[in-house]
Amino acid sequence: MSKHHPRAPHRDEFAKFQTISLRWHDNDAYGHVNNVVYYTFFDTAVNQMLMEAGVLDLESSKIVGFVVETRCTYFSSLTYPGNAEIGVACAHLGRTSARYRIGVFAQGAERAAAVGDFTQVYVERGVQKPVEIPPDARAFLESLRR
Amino acid sequence: MSKHHPRAPHRDEFAKFQTISLRWHDNDAYGHVNNVVYYTFFDTAVNQMLMEAGVLDLESSKIVGFVVETRCTYFSSLTYPGNAEIGVACAHLGRTSARYRIGVFAQGAERAAAVGDFTQVYVERGVQKPVEIPPDARAFLESLRR
Amino acid sequence: MSKHHPRAPHRDEFAKFQTISLRWHDNDAYGHVNNVVYYTFFDTAVNQMLMEAGVLDLESSKIVGFVVETRCTYFSSLTYPGNAEIGVACAHLGRTSARYRIGVFAQGAERAAAVGDFTQVYVERGVQKPVEIPPDARAFLESLRR
Amino acid sequence: MSKHHPRAPHRDEFAKFQTISLRWHDNDAYGHVNNVVYYTFFDTAVNQMLMEAGVLDLESSKIVGFVVETRCTYFSSLTYPGNAEIGVACAHLGRTSARYRIGVFAQGAERAAAVGDFTQVYVERGVQKPVEIPPDARAFLESLRR
Repeated sequence: MSKHHPRAPHRDEFAKFQTISLRWHDNDAYGHVNNVVYYTFFDTAVNQMLMEAGVLDLESSKIVGFVVETRCTYFSSLTYPGNAEIGVACAHLGRTSARYRIGVFAQGAERAAAVGDFTQVYVERGVQKPVEIPPDARAFLESLRR
Repeated sequence: MSKHHPRAPHRDEFAKFQTISLRWHDNDAYGHVNNVVYYTFFDTAVNQMLMEAGVLDLESSKIVGFVVETRCTYFSSLTYPGNAEIGVACAHLGRTSARYRIGVFAQGAERAAAVGDFTQVYVERGVQKPVEIPPDARAFLESLRR
Repeated sequence: MSKHHPRAPHRDEFAKFQTISLRWHDNDAYGHVNNVVYYTFFDTAVNQMLMEAGVLDLESSKIVGFVVETRCTYFSSLTYPGNAEIGVACAHLGRTSARYRIGVFAQGAERAAAVGDFTQVYVERGVQKPVEIPPDARAFLESLRR
Repeated sequence: MSKHHPRAPHRDEFAKFQTISLRWHDNDAYGHVNNVVYYTFFDTAVNQMLMEAGVLDLESSKIVGFVVETRCTYFSSLTYPGNAEIGVACAHLGRTSARYRIGVFAQGAERAAAVGDFTQVYVERGVQKPVEIPPDARAFLESLRR
C-alpha cells in the first residue's frame, strides 16, 4: 500500500529489533503470512532477547515467564519470501509481570504491518505461582522501556 | 487446578462448539500447549463453521474474511495428548466486520482454559477493500449471537 | 481421484488408527495440506499410542524415543476442513530402535493418501546414547507388528 | 558433539545455501528443534531459491512443483535460539521431476546436523498432471547439480 495505516506505529517506538526469516508455510491458503504466525514472532523475539541478555536459560532458569495475555492488530500483509523485523519495547513493568509492545515490520519499512502486546507473569517453573521478577531480568526490561 | 479462574467464561456463553485434537508439537519446551497454538484453534473453528454453514468456499467465494485483530487471555494450561473444545459466539456484528468471542476448553471442562476475540473484516478477495457482509453469512453470524 | 495410486497401501496393512482433525493453516498457499504437516501426524499418532499404552510418560520416562529417520511418499492431497486417519504399524523392531510404517488416510478412505516411515532410537533422556527398548514398550511394539 | 557422524555430509556437497532463523516454538517438549521442523526448511529453501532465480512466481506460474516424496536422516540436534544454514543441491533431474538433496547445518558447522531428499514433480496448477520441467527452471536446476 502506498500510505501507511494511521494507527501503524513507527520504528522509533521500539527499543530493540530482531530479524526473522519467513518460511514457505507461513503463507496460508490466501497467499499471505497467516495471522497466527505473527504470534510466533512475539515469543521468538522476546525469549531470544532475554536469552542473549543472559536473564533466561531454558535449562537452568527456575523462574520463567508464563504468557497470560496476547493481542495483535493487523494493518497490512506480509508475504514469504522475505524477512520480518520485530521491534520490541517494554510497555509496562509490574512487580511480577511485564507487558511487551511488539511491532512487526516488513524489512526496511518505517511503519509496522502489525502491532501487538505480549504479557508474561513470572512464575516458579512447574509451580505456576507468580513471583517477583528477578533483578537481572528487571534491569534488562527497564532498558527496553519506551 | 481445583478452582477455575474468576474470569474464565462458562460453556453456556458460546453458541457452537468444535473439537480439535491436540498434536505432539503443540506442546512447547515448557511441556504445555504453546500460547500461539490457541490462535490456530480460532481460525480453524471459525472457518470450518462458515464452510459447514455453506457461507464460505475457499475456491469460489469472492468475498472472504480478513483478520484485523485477535486477542487471547490464558487461564490454565492444555497439554497434548487430548482434545480441545472450541466454543464460538458472535460478539459483535457490524456492516463490514464481525467479532467472534472464542473459548478454548479442555475436553469436558465447564470453564474455559483461555478466551479470546477474533475480528474479521469482509473484503473482496485480492482487493482488500471492506465490503458489506453477504446476507447468507450475516444470517449465520446472527445465529451465533449470545 | 477415481482410482487409487498402485503403491498406496490399504487400511488392512496397519495395526491401529488415530483420528486427527485438520486445521485451517494445515493448508498452504496451494490450498492443500502442506507436505510438512503429514510428519506432524506421525509423531502425534506414535507418541499418543505409546502414552495411552502406558509406556511413555513425558514427565517421568527416563528412556525416550529419539527420531533418527523419517520419510513420506505422497499419493493424493488432503484438504482442510476434515479429519485424517493415521494408521500405524511396527515395521521393524530392533534391540535399540523401532521403525513404524504410517499411513495417512482421508476419512473413510480405503487407500492411503500418503505413506511413510518413522524410526526412533531409544535413548536415555539428555544423554542421547542408545539403550535397549524397555520390556513394556517392546511388548506394545510387538502388538503393532503387521 | 565432538565428532561428526560418519554419514553427515560436508558443506562442499551442496551448491547453494540459505540461512533460516530458528523460532521459539521450533523446540519441542524435549527442548530441541522438532524433527518435523526440518522439513519446513526444505520447502522454504527450495521455493525461495526458485523464486529468487525467477523461475517460480506464486501468483502467475502455471506450472508448479508438487511434492511427491521427502525423507530426512537426523545426526545431531539443533536448538533455538540460533540460525540454521540450509544447503541445497540437485541430485536428480528428470523430464518431469527433480530431486533435491538438502543439508541442514548448525550455523558455521562443516558437517550437517541432518540430510534429506525433497522430490517434486512439475504439474499444471490445479490439474496435477505431470508436465515437462520448463526450460528456465531446468537451467536453474542444472546450476544446482553437484
